[in-house]
Amino acid sequence: MLARADRSLGSRQSMSGSSQSVEISKISGACRTAETDCVAAEEPLEIRIAYSTPDGRATRSVSITMRTPGNDDELAAGFLFTESIIGSAADIAAIETCGPPAPDTGHHNVVRIELAADVAVDLGRLQRHFYTTSSCGVCGKTSMDALRAGGISAVPFHTQFPAGALTTMPDKLRATQSTFEKTGGLHAAAAFDADGKLLKTMEDVGRHNAVDKLIGRLLLDGRIPARELGLMVSGRASFELVQKALVAGMPLLAAVSAPSSLAVSLAQEFNMTLVGFLRGETFNVYSGEERVLS
Amino acid sequence: MLARADRSLGSRQSMSGSSQSVEISKISGACRTAETDCVAAEEPLEIRIAYSTPDGRATRSVSITMRTPGNDDELAAGFLFTESIIGSAADIAAIETCGPPAPDTGHHNVVRIELAADVAVDLGRLQRHFYTTSSCGVCGKTSMDALRAGGISAVPFHTQFPAGALTTMPDKLRATQSTFEKTGGLHAAAAFDADGKLLKTMEDVGRHNAVDKLIGRLLLDGRIPARELGLMVSGRASFELVQKALVAGMPLLAAVSAPSSLAVSLAQEFNMTLVGFLRGETFNVYSGEERVLS
Repeated sequence: MLARADRSLGSRQSMSGSSQSVEISKISGACRTAETDCVAAEEPLEIRIAYSTPDGRATRSVSITMRTPGNDDELAAGFLFTESIIGSAADIAAIETCGPPAPDTGHHNVVRIELAADVAVDLGRLQRHFYTTSSCGVCGKTSMDALRAGGISAVPFHTQFPAGALTTMPDKLRATQSTFEKTGGLHAAAAFDADGKLLKTMEDVGRHNAVDKLIGRLLLDGRIPARELGLMVSGRASFELVQKALVAGMPLLAAVSAPSSLAVSLAQEFNMTLVGFLRGETFNVYSGEERVLS
Repeated sequence: MLARADRSLGSRQSMSGSSQSVEISKISGACRTAETDCVAAEEPLEIRIAYSTPDGRATRSVSITMRTPGNDDELAAGFLFTESIIGSAADIAAIETCGPPAPDTGHHNVVRIELAADVAVDLGRLQRHFYTTSSCGVCGKTSMDALRAGGISAVPFHTQFPAGALTTMPDKLRATQSTFEKTGGLHAAAAFDADGKLLKTMEDVGRHNAVDKLIGRLLLDGRIPARELGLMVSGRASFELVQKALVAGMPLLAAVSAPSSLAVSLAQEFNMTLVGFLRGETFNVYSGEERVLS
């Protein structure tokens, strides 16, 4: 009982609830010791929207995502925006947490976004995983065509990033990852400018959530489209992350680790700069090399 | 044009289409060189089910997931099983690829699972992200209650794993990760027994897909519930991965990296052994320590 009480206390004491203390056994060869470890917090967040219908206002749940508590408003706003349910910050009339706190952790796990009266919600988008496929079947090309049909266009040539600025980003990102240092369990996403200045960092157990939190913050700050900003992620670069950066109008995505084939194709198709394996003084450019100055 | 033709050739030549060659610029300090890199393949896979209704047979799409081509049958079967759309291998009458190959890569990206005539499909499960929440709001406890209501029960005490067997797993897993070696971009999941024998490994750009492929293989081989097998994953352990292992009846989940708070709570609640930071001779036990022999 004491151990469990301590755990819940640990959870409340940690900064913004992003980590939690647990009792573990550490096993090293023949040696077994009881220790206290710190793990990244993961809890469900339900995102609801309230919107206009011909019969008045309606509310519905649009997502339940497992996320690390903290910056939930940004996460909800960023999710609606990168999934193209809303098109701009002006579509948001209010953001509020609902309901009582969760009994086990005290976090509020429901965020409701009140959409402006004139926003037409495309309920079909909420079923995006079931989108109608073309007669030729599902492939990378149809995935990209779907984005284009949704209004995503190529990134204009506008901002260039010195190689020397890019190579400073991993250390700067790591320096801000307070919860990662404690838990080893969080992804990070950051926005930075061409001078290599880190503007904002977000952390989450889900890579897509860290990116949604970051883009949500940029959206609420009136910085979308973010034509002068690069997006840095701590892990790998997938199709989904390139898509989110594209929706935000960001010209460059840099990942500490590897990109996927479809991330590369998507970046090439929409003229985005894609950097991978950004480590030390070295990195690979998979697309849009002309934006990298050296 | 030549570079693009080479790329598509590289894609077809690679084993089971799991990686693809791309032309990159490697930037190291002031030095910029053109190189050929190998990236993990990522393409959409649509999973369809054909099932009985009061009016006859119907077909519908249940998921489009970004995955690494290969072992698509296992992925589709594992997805339906770990999402509790089907309850056993007997629910599957046939698995087939549909439609023409994708024009850009030649892969078949649609798998249709023909369900047995007597299988009742719960369409509500297909909307799992929109599940009804209890009046107390969404929290870790409601997430676990939903699993219990879905028929998931605690793992019986049955198999024990020597610590010395667990510590051999990361090297064995890495030795089988052929595509990871080339691309640095894939997650792996493996099933192993109490003697530390690696039975099967699957790779994918998506961690959940690698686990679904593995559990799908076990399902099709008649090895579910896998009461004697442990699940090893190359990355972190989230709520979702613990859930999938639980559905498969596996008593132990071992991760190379950190677990999340809800992964720990779920493992504790359902009496599963959860191991994290499995590196060299050392690892942490977050739950179910009695299954680890040392």
